[in-house]
Parts: sequence; structure tokens; C-alpha cells
Amino acid sequence: MLPGMEARARTGEDALVARLVGRLRATDGVLVGPGDDAALLSGGPEVLATADLLVEGSHFDLAFSSPADVGWKALAVNVSDIAAMGGTPRYALVSLGLPEDGEDVADALYRGLAEAAAAFGVGVAGGDVVRSDVLLVGVAALGDPPPGGPVLRSGARPGDVACVTGTLGGAAAGLALLRAATTDPEALALLDRCPSLVEAHRRGRARVAEGRAAAAAGAHAMIDVSDGLALDLSRVCEASGVGVEVRAADLPLAPGVADVAAWLGEDPARIGLGGGDDYELAIAIPAEGVAALAGIVTVVGRFTEGRASTIDGAPLPPLGWDPFRG
Amino acid sequence: MLPGMEARARTGEDALVARLVGRLRATDGVLVGPGDDAALLSGGPEVLATADLLVEGSHFDLAFSSPADVGWKALAVNVSDIAAMGGTPRYALVSLGLPEDGEDVADALYRGLAEAAAAFGVGVAGGDVVRSDVLLVGVAALGDPPPGGPVLRSGARPGDVACVTGTLGGAAAGLALLRAATTDPEALALLDRCPSLVEAHRRGRARVAEGRAAAAAGAHAMIDVSDGLALDLSRVCEASGVGVEVRAADLPLAPGVADVAAWLGEDPARIGLGGGDDYELAIAIPAEGVAALAGIVTVVGRFTEGRASTIDGAPLPPLGWDPFRG
Repeated sequence: MLPGMEARARTGEDALVARLVGRLRATDGVLVGPGDDAALLSGGPEVLATADLLVEGSHFDLAFSSPADVGWKALAVNVSDIAAMGGTPRYALVSLGLPEDGEDVADALYRGLAEAAAAFGVGVAGGDVVRSDVLLVGVAALGDPPPGGPVLRSGARPGDVACVTGTLGGAAAGLALLRAATTDPEALALLDRCPSLVEAHRRGRARVAEGRAAAAAGAHAMIDVSDGLALDLSRVCEASGVGVEVRAADLPLAPGVADVAAWLGEDPARIGLGGGDDYELAIAIPAEGVAALAGIVTVVGRFTEGRASTIDGAPLPPLGWDPFRG
Repeated sequence: MLPGMEARARTGEDALVARLVGRLRATDGVLVGPGDDAALLSGGPEVLATADLLVEGSHFDLAFSSPADVGWKALAVNVSDIAAMGGTPRYALVSLGLPEDGEDVADALYRGLAEAAAAFGVGVAGGDVVRSDVLLVGVAALGDPPPGGPVLRSGARPGDVACVTGTLGGAAAGLALLRAATTDPEALALLDRCPSLVEAHRRGRARVAEGRAAAAAGAHAMIDVSDGLALDLSRVCEASGVGVEVRAADLPLAPGVADVAAWLGEDPARIGLGGGDDYELAIAIPAEGVAALAGIVTVVGRFTEGRASTIDGAPLPPLGWDPFRG
């Protein structure tokens, strides 16, 4: 007998996949769903496509997020990439790496995934379940580009206004509190007082409607703030060949970030600049387009000639989260 | 300072991604390629989509496959899923989980991936690179369905001929030899005599042209033989509500499989039935369609009324590889 080759009535993998797929709702456009070699999807002349892989220990910690939170996040981060092009998410493929005896984890993860799929209007069309020592979730998401074409990172022009959706620093502040709360009573007290920070870490919301509105309002460039505003703005600047001037006082910090900064002895603006995982959108848009985004974005600065990036006139530190830092 | 938040001139991740992407060729239909939040692809009215995740230790062993082989395989297994629908692969998204100091591994893996992309006519449109303790490669592949619609697993009818492309058991026999060759001189001698078995394990070829031909010839059902012919045929039978009669003498065993079986003291047919990773196609097709596939497939039996599956009249053991067996 070859290693790994066994006879059985019905395979464990097939049964597990059937159970997980049962958690998902049928979705318009998924013409052939999970269970065959590939899914068949209703398409369009152009398709947006993106993929992100979340690895336990690197992207999430099951001490601070439930498996359902991880399922939510795995879909949300991919939807956020579609949103950052001004697109509308439609489908996702989900690859799950599951530790031994991880079937309950898989069930819970799929529950969170199904919640996110419903929230973002995404049909989970297929995927894969494999064995792995740590929990892994890979998602590929497909979507429709906006009518005028996707909003790239490379279109920012000198004079464009720099603005962001929502608030910054919440997810990073929430994670910092979760990490410290087991040993630091002050962190625990802050955690109790600021549940929205924990929610921002566990259940970040992709800004789909905001991304579409920005595209419709004539945004020149857009990126989702996954690694930190300063780092992600620097990516727009590099791709576009421009600089940016940011005003620290205008950064829309999430409620509670100032308290966390005080506890850490840190400048609140640095948490807003360097905190990852917020999944807000950073947008470059001509001044005349900003009015259409009233109530959706906060203006934080403007893009400039040349390549210098500054905050209140000083060099903008390229803060952000990078797993490959030297 | 928050954990993981640092200032730097240019991130390691961005530099690594730029280098890896430099290995890829520009491809028709990739309108916006790697480097933005999402890729923009030329689409079509319907899209085939599939995803598979390969995990070091579970799907490959770097003692027996080079990183370039792993890159090849990660794409080939996904292309095979598109082929099994009768489709034409077009695009892939690649998510890489890379251990510490794994940049050279990433380079080599992308070399093999680029070779497979060229061989199968696939454009690598984007993806993700993350940190992981073991090497991970997740691929999502997109393709065009055949003109008459995809060939599902569920369409086999009683009386259909059961046939397979290429040869069976080669990849499993090659892996068995590689595993034994360090300690068993007979295995080493077989390895030297049968390099095609090792090649079958390391560089399996997805049967794209064969899948399209089968769809055009009126195949009723199709699946790729990834886990073993017996297990994959049982999936077709279950989805279609039919049985199957297989003739052991007609199984097209790969050259050398009989020698490996003799060395193992195993029935060669069992290696042909249970050996995974061959990525041949198993096809259900009306008898009148078989002539159009002459030279492409071998007839191994026929589908039947009822749910019994047999080989030479005895129950067909559901042999195959299943990481979730109880």
C-alpha cells in the first residue's frame, strides 16, 4: 500500500467540505457553486481580481480573535482590495488550511465568513480545505470595476486633495490593548471602556460604498489602508511620482486612540499614521470632487510636486506594518 | 511604538514583490497586473474559477521537489481543475507564505511558476506574499468555459463509457521511490531507471487540450484525477447517481509502475487506482463520442445503472489520498 492511500466509504474531506458549504447562501451569479472541479460564475467584460492569505501567528492570534472573526477578516481584507479600486465585490474562493481536529474551528470560521459574505454581498463560489499545522485562510475575490475604470494607485497629481474614509488607528490600538490586557490592569480598563477598538481589530469593515462613491466623484488614485496610512500613502506617492503634505491635527483618529496613546506614552498621530488593519481608503481627488464625498471622507492634506512627503512640515515617517522588514 | 510598527525607506515586502513580479511575462488580457490593490482582467460572459492551497509537509516535501517544482505544481493543479471543466485557463493569482530568509526559495518558486504559466498560457495577475513557518502556495485560477458550457461531475449516465487521459500511478510511484531511495538500494536503482516517474511527481501536466477535446466530443461528466482514479470516479458516480464497472487490465499504468509494484509487493492496478497527483482526466462520454478522442484517452470501463462500483466484477475499493481520513 502506498503511504496515505486508504480505502474508505466516504472521504473525510468531502464530508467536511459538504458541511462547510452548507453554511453558505446561494448567491446570484454563482452558476455552478462549490463541489465541482471549478465554479462557474456570471462574468463581465472586465473583472477585478485579488488574493490575500492570512496565517495564524502572523495575521491573527486565536487568543485575541475567534475563528469566526478570522473568517470575517479573511473576506473583508479581500473585499477591501476590490473597494480600493472603486469596484463592487461579487465572488470569493476560500482555501482553508486546518490543523488536526480543527473541524469545529472550520465550522466557526465559515460562520464568520458567511456573515461577511452576506454583509458585503459576496458569493463564496468554491475553494479548498487542506491539512496544515497552523490555521490558514486564503481568499481570492472577484468583482466588477466601476463604470469609468478602476482607480489605480498611480493616478495622484500635484494639487489633489488627500483624504481618508472613516477613522484611523482603531484596529492597531485594539490589538495593543488585547495583547496587554492579561497583565496590565490599565489596558484592561481601557479595553472595557473602548469596545469599538476591539471591534475594529476583529471585524474591520471594507469600504465598498465609499470606494464606489470616490470613483464616481473622480478620484485620481486610491489605496486601502491595510499596513498604515503613512506607508500606504507612500505607495500612492511612489506609484504616482508625487509627494504629499499631511496635517497631523486633521487625522481622523478612532475614538479611544488618544487614550491608548496616553497609556503607551506615544504620540496619537503616530498610531493614526502607522496602525495597520483599518481597511479605510486613502484617496487622491481633485479639490472640486471633495464636495461629493462630504460625510464620507476627512481631508488630511494634499499631494504635491516633487517626491517629499511631510507631516506638519517635517518628513513623514514611513510608519507601517511590514512582515518583511530587515 | 506599537508592536510591528516601524519606519523604513522602502518596505521589504514591496521590494520582494517587485522582484518576483519581474519574473513574470506580460500576458494578453491582464489589463492591470500585479502591484495595485487588485488586478483588472479582460473577462467574458462566464468565468471558471478555482483555488487550491499547497502546504509544505502535506502536499510537497522540499527533500523531493525543488522550490521551482513546487511553483510549477501549484499552478498545474489549478489549471487541471479548469481543464476538468473543459475550460481554457487564463489567469492566476498567487499567494505565497514564506519562511524567514526564504527570499531565494521565493525566487526559485516563481521561476517554476513562470515556466508553468508559459506552458499553460496563463497570466499571473497578482497575489500576496506573507510570512509563514512553512512554505505555502495558494493559487486561484480563472478560465473560460467551453462553448457548450462546462462539463460537470454530475452528468454521467448509465451506458456512458469511462475513459482516462494519459497514464496512471506515475506520480505516486515516483514519490514512493523518492521516499525510499535514501535507504533502499533497489528503490534507488528503480529511480535511475524510471526518471519519468519522478518527473510525473514533480512536474505533472494539466490536460487542457484533452479536456477541451472531451467537452467538444460531448463528454457528459469529467473530473481530474488528483486523489486517485477510484476515489475520483466514486465522486463522479455519487454526483451523477450511477455506478461504474472498471476492467483492471485496461488501466493505462505509467511505464515503470509495474516495476514499482513488484518492488512494493503490491498489485499494480491498486497503484493505478489509488495513486494521486496524476492530474489526468477521467471522463464519462457516450460511446459514439469516444472515436473523436482516439489517441487521447484509454477506455477503462463503463458507467452503469444503480450505485454499485466494481473492478473485474468485485467491489471497487475507494482507494485514494485523503488528508482528512478518520
